[in-house]
Amino acid sequence: MRFFVSGCAGFVGSNLTDRLLADGHEVVGYDNFSTGRASFLCNASQSDRFALVTGDLLDTERLTKSMVGAEFVFHLAANADVRFGTDHPRKDLEQNTIATMNVLEGMRANRVSRIAFSSTGSIYAEAPSFPTPECSPLPVQTSLYGASKLAAECFIEAFCEGFGMQSFIFRFVSILGERYTHGHVFDFYRQLRTHPEYLQVLGNGLQRKSYLYVQDCIDAMLLAIESAPGKVNIYNLGTDEYCNVNDSISWICGRLGLTPELRYAGGDRGWIGDNPFIFLDCGSIRSLGWRPRLSIREAVTRTVDFLSQNPAITEQA
Amino acid sequence: MRFFVSGCAGFVGSNLTDRLLADGHEVVGYDNFSTGRASFLCNASQSDRFALVTGDLLDTERLTKSMVGAEFVFHLAANADVRFGTDHPRKDLEQNTIATMNVLEGMRANRVSRIAFSSTGSIYAEAPSFPTPECSPLPVQTSLYGASKLAAECFIEAFCEGFGMQSFIFRFVSILGERYTHGHVFDFYRQLRTHPEYLQVLGNGLQRKSYLYVQDCIDAMLLAIESAPGKVNIYNLGTDEYCNVNDSISWICGRLGLTPELRYAGGDRGWIGDNPFIFLDCGSIRSLGWRPRLSIREAVTRTVDFLSQNPAITEQA
Repeated sequence: MRFFVSGCAGFVGSNLTDRLLADGHEVVGYDNFSTGRASFLCNASQSDRFALVTGDLLDTERLTKSMVGAEFVFHLAANADVRFGTDHPRKDLEQNTIATMNVLEGMRANRVSRIAFSSTGSIYAEAPSFPTPECSPLPVQTSLYGASKLAAECFIEAFCEGFGMQSFIFRFVSILGERYTHGHVFDFYRQLRTHPEYLQVLGNGLQRKSYLYVQDCIDAMLLAIESAPGKVNIYNLGTDEYCNVNDSISWICGRLGLTPELRYAGGDRGWIGDNPFIFLDCGSIRSLGWRPRLSIREAVTRTVDFLSQNPAITEQA
Repeated sequence: MRFFVSGCAGFVGSNLTDRLLADGHEVVGYDNFSTGRASFLCNASQSDRFALVTGDLLDTERLTKSMVGAEFVFHLAANADVRFGTDHPRKDLEQNTIATMNVLEGMRANRVSRIAFSSTGSIYAEAPSFPTPECSPLPVQTSLYGASKLAAECFIEAFCEGFGMQSFIFRFVSILGERYTHGHVFDFYRQLRTHPEYLQVLGNGLQRKSYLYVQDCIDAMLLAIESAPGKVNIYNLGTDEYCNVNDSISWICGRLGLTPELRYAGGDRGWIGDNPFIFLDCGSIRSLGWRPRLSIREAVTRTVDFLSQNPAITEQA
């Protein structure tokens, strides 16, 4: 099958691209390299079934041309920077919502009818129940990132109804693993490399979050697009556990053999719009037969090992 | 108080503008006259407390300048055309979602911190329960209109959290009354004027919808902005009843003294993305002390009288 993958040079996108190629598929990858890295496409570039288009999703002409012949779209490109949304509110609108509309319009122009979309558990904002199911009550958004992703989901759904498309909307917890380039493990690792004797922690260390290993995430997505029958298929993707920031710190420091002084900024949130508790009910995707292979602790450890083995990742940032 | 009203020449916007002026406030009205009508501002234009800016919400420079000195924003401008969304999907994104971001950014630039927004019961799409409460489960959008309005809600909420704004989000049923210019009463009235002997009806006539009289809608909004204390205040606005299309036809025909042959297109939806049942739980706004003064039947009758007395409305369209 011929896949179109937006954000093909990103963390999840490049791992997915490698997997699709390994499975014998063709991939047209699209990336503007704003955060994607050429080095993540070293494997893919060896394949004659891979074609790279360097372009921005706001360039509708280039985008539409690049989709010619595609049979399935993985729309993973995004501004995934949750924390700094208020520094540039329009960026989330453009890179997440308008970009998604452009992908949908490109699909319509090319008669591509199936799309998988990387949404986020952040759309639940401060959810009323945990683990949070897909049918949680209409949330009040607290971050521009969550707002822009839920907005994108809405347009995808309306296109499915209006134009006979089929969609797979995946609400991710934070993803960890090889080619991970931003998030708390990244920040802590970089700090500890610079000053192993202390660690600055946003909030009070008690924020509870969920994580998922990138290959488990890809397994789940590929299973869903093969087997979910609905017009709009929405799945939470996460593990059936959560950890708090202090747990994660202890695993990272343990792996690195460090015992830094912990300096907390205080407060129950890391930043404005931070959700102090993210824990998703993943019963729907599990009902398809999927199980994550790694625990959160294993995923954190593997991510620390990746960063240790690839110093260029934290040096470039 | 100095109000900024986007969509001031529209159906709800012009009625609100008149009310605010009658209550002694200042109003800066903003409209691109894409569907708004200059004649609706005849009253307002007599007041030296009213200033009109002809401009589009996509013109961010003009918009931002127009908001100077405003203390409260009523953002009512929208592409309110639900039925033809699939003819031009980008229009809903631009006029409803991006336009709202522009209003929010204009407010931020001018340090205006309070906004009321006309959302819609269409965001509930095919709701799982009736009457539908504000905390209904996350809906799957079926129309570009609903998608674009829920997307706008999301950004408003994120701005409230990120920038300390206060919002009042009103999810309207269909509004009826003086200055009504589109919707089923309009369509039926125009048909009956052209060919009183028959009436073409989309769907099977059994779609169940709710309606609210425009002055009742304005009463509710003004009460909420005076008394609701939250950061994000979300209210359904409707009556505690619904009617089906056939009920509405009988009231319209009865008022006009006509007995047309009814020609049904068939099917349980009027068009792709039409919700066959809209009935909102309005307990939240009622808990503030609001009650609608007119029933749906009275609102339909009053709308027919308005159209009869103002033939220019249906002739212009």
